[in-house]
Amino acid sequence: MTDSTPLTLAEKASLASGADFWTTKAVRDIPSVYLTDGPHGVRKQGDHVDHLGVSMSYPATCFPPASGLSQSWNTDLARRVGAALGIEARAIGVNVLLGPGVNIKRHPLGGRNFEYFSEDPHLAGALGAAWVTGIQSEHVGASLKHFAVNNQETDRHRISADVDARTLREIYLRAFQIIVRDANPWTVMASYNRINGVPASESEFLLTQVLRDEWGYDGVVVSDWGAVGDRVAAARAGLDLEMPAADGTDEQLLDAVIEGTLPVEVLDRISDRVRRLAQRAHADTTGAGVPFDVDTHHALAQEAAAQSIVLLKNEDDLLPLNGGTSVAVIGEAAATPRFQGGGSSFVNTTRVDVAVEELRRLGGDAVRYAAGYSSDPAAAGDELLAEAVAAAREADVAIVFIAAPLESEGIDRENLELPADQVALVQGVLAANPHTIVVVAHGGAVQLSAIGSVPAILDCALSGQGGGRAIADILYGNVNPSGRLSETVPLRLEDTPAFGIFPGEHGHALYGEGLFVGYRWYDTRDITVAYPFGHGLSYTTFEYSGLTLDVTDEGIAATVTITNTGSRAGREVAQFYVAVPGSEVTRPVHELKGFATIALKPAQSEDVTVLLRRDDLAYWDTRGETWTLESGDYVVSVGASSRDIRETAIATVVGDVVHVELTMHSTIGELLANPFTKTAIEAALSSAFGAADNPAVGGNVVQMISPSPLHSVVGLLGEAFDAAEFDELLDAANASATTDAR
Amino acid sequence: MTDSTPLTLAEKASLASGADFWTTKAVRDIPSVYLTDGPHGVRKQGDHVDHLGVSMSYPATCFPPASGLSQSWNTDLARRVGAALGIEARAIGVNVLLGPGVNIKRHPLGGRNFEYFSEDPHLAGALGAAWVTGIQSEHVGASLKHFAVNNQETDRHRISADVDARTLREIYLRAFQIIVRDANPWTVMASYNRINGVPASESEFLLTQVLRDEWGYDGVVVSDWGAVGDRVAAARAGLDLEMPAADGTDEQLLDAVIEGTLPVEVLDRISDRVRRLAQRAHADTTGAGVPFDVDTHHALAQEAAAQSIVLLKNEDDLLPLNGGTSVAVIGEAAATPRFQGGGSSFVNTTRVDVAVEELRRLGGDAVRYAAGYSSDPAAAGDELLAEAVAAAREADVAIVFIAAPLESEGIDRENLELPADQVALVQGVLAANPHTIVVVAHGGAVQLSAIGSVPAILDCALSGQGGGRAIADILYGNVNPSGRLSETVPLRLEDTPAFGIFPGEHGHALYGEGLFVGYRWYDTRDITVAYPFGHGLSYTTFEYSGLTLDVTDEGIAATVTITNTGSRAGREVAQFYVAVPGSEVTRPVHELKGFATIALKPAQSEDVTVLLRRDDLAYWDTRGETWTLESGDYVVSVGASSRDIRETAIATVVGDVVHVELTMHSTIGELLANPFTKTAIEAALSSAFGAADNPAVGGNVVQMISPSPLHSVVGLLGEAFDAAEFDELLDAANASATTDAR
Repeated sequence: MTDSTPLTLAEKASLASGADFWTTKAVRDIPSVYLTDGPHGVRKQGDHVDHLGVSMSYPATCFPPASGLSQSWNTDLARRVGAALGIEARAIGVNVLLGPGVNIKRHPLGGRNFEYFSEDPHLAGALGAAWVTGIQSEHVGASLKHFAVNNQETDRHRISADVDARTLREIYLRAFQIIVRDANPWTVMASYNRINGVPASESEFLLTQVLRDEWGYDGVVVSDWGAVGDRVAAARAGLDLEMPAADGTDEQLLDAVIEGTLPVEVLDRISDRVRRLAQRAHADTTGAGVPFDVDTHHALAQEAAAQSIVLLKNEDDLLPLNGGTSVAVIGEAAATPRFQGGGSSFVNTTRVDVAVEELRRLGGDAVRYAAGYSSDPAAAGDELLAEAVAAAREADVAIVFIAAPLESEGIDRENLELPADQVALVQGVLAANPHTIVVVAHGGAVQLSAIGSVPAILDCALSGQGGGRAIADILYGNVNPSGRLSETVPLRLEDTPAFGIFPGEHGHALYGEGLFVGYRWYDTRDITVAYPFGHGLSYTTFEYSGLTLDVTDEGIAATVTITNTGSRAGREVAQFYVAVPGSEVTRPVHELKGFATIALKPAQSEDVTVLLRRDDLAYWDTRGETWTLESGDYVVSVGASSRDIRETAIATVVGDVVHVELTMHSTIGELLANPFTKTAIEAALSSAFGAADNPAVGGNVVQMISPSPLHSVVGLLGEAFDAAEFDELLDAANASATTDAR
Repeated sequence: MTDSTPLTLAEKASLASGADFWTTKAVRDIPSVYLTDGPHGVRKQGDHVDHLGVSMSYPATCFPPASGLSQSWNTDLARRVGAALGIEARAIGVNVLLGPGVNIKRHPLGGRNFEYFSEDPHLAGALGAAWVTGIQSEHVGASLKHFAVNNQETDRHRISADVDARTLREIYLRAFQIIVRDANPWTVMASYNRINGVPASESEFLLTQVLRDEWGYDGVVVSDWGAVGDRVAAARAGLDLEMPAADGTDEQLLDAVIEGTLPVEVLDRISDRVRRLAQRAHADTTGAGVPFDVDTHHALAQEAAAQSIVLLKNEDDLLPLNGGTSVAVIGEAAATPRFQGGGSSFVNTTRVDVAVEELRRLGGDAVRYAAGYSSDPAAAGDELLAEAVAAAREADVAIVFIAAPLESEGIDRENLELPADQVALVQGVLAANPHTIVVVAHGGAVQLSAIGSVPAILDCALSGQGGGRAIADILYGNVNPSGRLSETVPLRLEDTPAFGIFPGEHGHALYGEGLFVGYRWYDTRDITVAYPFGHGLSYTTFEYSGLTLDVTDEGIAATVTITNTGSRAGREVAQFYVAVPGSEVTRPVHELKGFATIALKPAQSEDVTVLLRRDDLAYWDTRGETWTLESGDYVVSVGASSRDIRETAIATVVGDVVHVELTMHSTIGELLANPFTKTAIEAALSSAFGAADNPAVGGNVVQMISPSPLHSVVGLLGEAFDAAEFDELLDAANASATTDAR
């Protein structure tokens, strides 16, 4: 792959956009790169590749979509799924898979939430980094998407996410930053939307200042398909590769260079990066074209599903089922599973486990099925319901499979509600048989209060093609459930952070809830929720003890002992939340800064240590536009959900030093707080106003004047204030400034 | 006041700032203007006028501060109070009173909320306009303040209120706009804070574009005292008069004109406006220097207080008291009333009614007093409590007077809580006597849940120097209470709209709750509150019937019949809330757009008609940066609070026509919605993708592609799309465009 003649300008420009819908151009010794949809399966279309969606893709394993996989809270699992995806991609000549999707689930109605990991950037970042590490270990590139703040489908090509700087950094960019830091994805995909008015694909702030200069990213920035408006502006901002093939945009770049409106270095940079991507893609051809092992990957899909399913509720240990129990399996979703969403992530599966069949495999003749409802509007709903109720009445236990309406790229959901006929079915079945278990499939969060009185609920999110087996195994206790919610389940739509302002209007979505996304909102405002972030039950129980904190140069090393106190082997997900109660900046009541999963046999006890990194504990300081670690007491809690805290300890952290210059524009309050200037200000105030409690203003005149900049009240202080003398005090204060971030 | 020689540049510049702390400079035939603090009383300092607060001001009537007066919901009363203030100002040579304060009560902890009217801009605008009309009818100017978005004391000189355009217009500027429109105040005061990063006193957007160009304001813009940072920038932006006297800023203006960095027209404009202000101030000298009638004004203060006090709760008609009832009057606040706040609004009263004395006047020997608690920390609290409990036990009825901690300009409150000793007192008294009535004084909203179990609560807000008489009259039934809350009383601080983000950090306060301030938040999110906006009980009852709506060129004329169905004369405040359920923009669940008060004798019935003006029904359209009245159904409700809706009717309104140009950048969804382009797009989609339900993407491909701009998917449509033909369709669609605001 060497050629002694440098590329011509035209050749360089031609590397800046696709050859067709899915590939880059081969130029001289630079081979073409094949990119295709993901992220939870390889969607390589068979023919008519210029056309979105008209031809079925090659069969591929459909792993649990991110909404499911994230519920495993298992980075090792995410890495293995990533690796399997890499193997499948290589098998059919795909070099870059378009994933992971790590956008934050800002609002539960986001139509593409099912493709994203979490409402929490730390969890999304950790899982995304593992996924990228996995796929890239198989010489297939990731495309970290959608960069950035792409949290809704409504008007998705034009909407401006209007978000303040701190929220942008701490919530919406954070997962991307973690993944770039820890896994260095080959490509990053610039999203459709605008951020504070600037299209992502034309944002020099985002694509150059943040991604390159601050984070040190050296891969390729690719556009989301069809996202580029102004190709020259996009190139200038830092967008390398426009996809798919575009008419005449290479020429636009060339013309701009010739006209001098685009520096030639931009084309050099683009071509160098795309060349490097091609080199990476073709450097190691291990596994290229070799069919993948369908059975092994299906088994991994089953395992992933089994770790992803969350037991929300299990009154009186209704689950697991006994082998001899007679079971009425009810609900069309038991026979026609909902396990993925629609759109570019849609996978043409190699096979699909069907829950009712898997349950029959385990329960034999004791399992009876009734559809209960039908997605066909022409079906006789009343009859189906009656038949299901009868089946439930005759069985020991009823299991109702329900599914939220299909979620699909391109359209946001309208509400959180389960379909009315399915709710009626659950209620009818429950009335007939109190031993009713609900198994619910959905992409984004759904409102569960309508079925809140059932004694047991299994939350599958979207569980991929192996979900049916995993559900059956959990119901019968062959697998001990260990999934944990990666998104809060609110009681009502009205309780959600962005209620009323999502999805915005007239091209703008105001991110008014700021930092308070997900549990950061519910927990800080102490709003009752249906199920908190991180929640999930097990067939065994775990005890936490002896949390200790060790402050090191890297951060806070938190260690806790976890003991399986029940009678079954199980996996616990220990979640570490951090609070800074005396913080000088706005903070959620606590934030996830670490987690670990651990498998324990009955009575087994092990220590879990998690490093809460300094850079994860820092906040984005808008004064210096920098991450700042505040000095002070950090309250570290570990628990089994954001609302099931088991142990708490405090670590005192020495943070970053922040110099705040004192001037005549500093406030009286600031000058009273500084040891150098305090006395002089106090004297001047006392001389000018007498006692602080002043009858003429009916209050404390020092409090009143505290927010005033000194320059604006010098006239009031009169002769009591010596300006020249004070200048020296300011100099002294600034010279010795060691004011830290507090 | 004529002089044939034009003013020199230096003379013009000298009119641009004060002569001292309270007056403008006299220049040739232009007399000096005396401005001084208000707004609920005249605070003219006696001597040492250069010094804030060191000398007591002239005695003046302390009318109820805005937090109290606003609870009257009575514009006529506000006008009369304004007129009385004008008379008092003229009596001591004051030409401009610095008020009204019409900032929105964004957050209950705002330290200056007690000086502001409401969380609702319509109510604040109506009352403020009446107040301005009143004072200016006496040839004293108002100073409409603090312009604008000045909603906190924390860092008040530097904080930037970061607020989106629509919220700015509809919430934070709206009361100002209404008052400029309806009452034309002589001056408008530019506030200390910044708005979206720009200091109010240097905001050309605010002071020129909005105030002058859009609203047509022709008076003087004066700075808040000490607010001006860059005098030249402020002049350029539209600030006329800098107050107080400033060192060298006149020369800065002069230099800037000479150097050509400031157009001379700016100085002309400033001097013309200040000259006109001086002319207005001295045109009519009626009443100048004539002592005002202290008794009459005190009686007006009593009347205003009587209309402002809100009966929050009155279980089993515990109130009014019978003459013979033995009464334990408890609480220091009964003897040492809290009726105003601290700071620039502090009034040196002519006299003060003391509740316990007024109660003794009415109840005679049946009234016994016990302090119960003391604001003196050295006092023996336990003894005071025991004494009060004993008094309560021996009386038929106990009345506990409590008061929130003193609120003062310059400092925000820390929490909503009542002092712990006062809460303990209420609980102790209640345990001793179930017939316990609480009378609570406070500036901003307080958390009443701690005393929620008492059967009767009288909310005085701050009631001015006549509050003691008014309270006694209401308790004994000489006055039927008719005040209504102008601010929601939340259950918890965590429920408030700006919880966690108020007061911001590092110079920025994000107004993330957007339009959802006050009841707009609580009602839209259906959050339980202690007492809703507009709430207030009476000793009689009112029935609403027959709401009719008449759509006219001016708006919606809403008429309802109100009947006094009880046995006492009383005053009802009918509140008209409007909802636009099918709106294409974010809207609170309903908004106050009109109100009326009506006094009715028992069994009397009268029609009330309120015009809901078209311009009050419009929303701020960020597309065209204009007010737009949406076409459609407007749901008008009338009731006795935002949560006590009695009658509802619907009016169909023909709104403004909004042209939205269709282009290649329009989305597929928009083109499918237009009758001209629909068919061609449908045909192209069908040809390219087949059926909408597409197995290759597992979903509805038309839904998926709907948010895509046409230009970004033309490649996908291929030959199915004829660009030239489509251009003609676009032209036709745009030519006939009558798309209205829906």
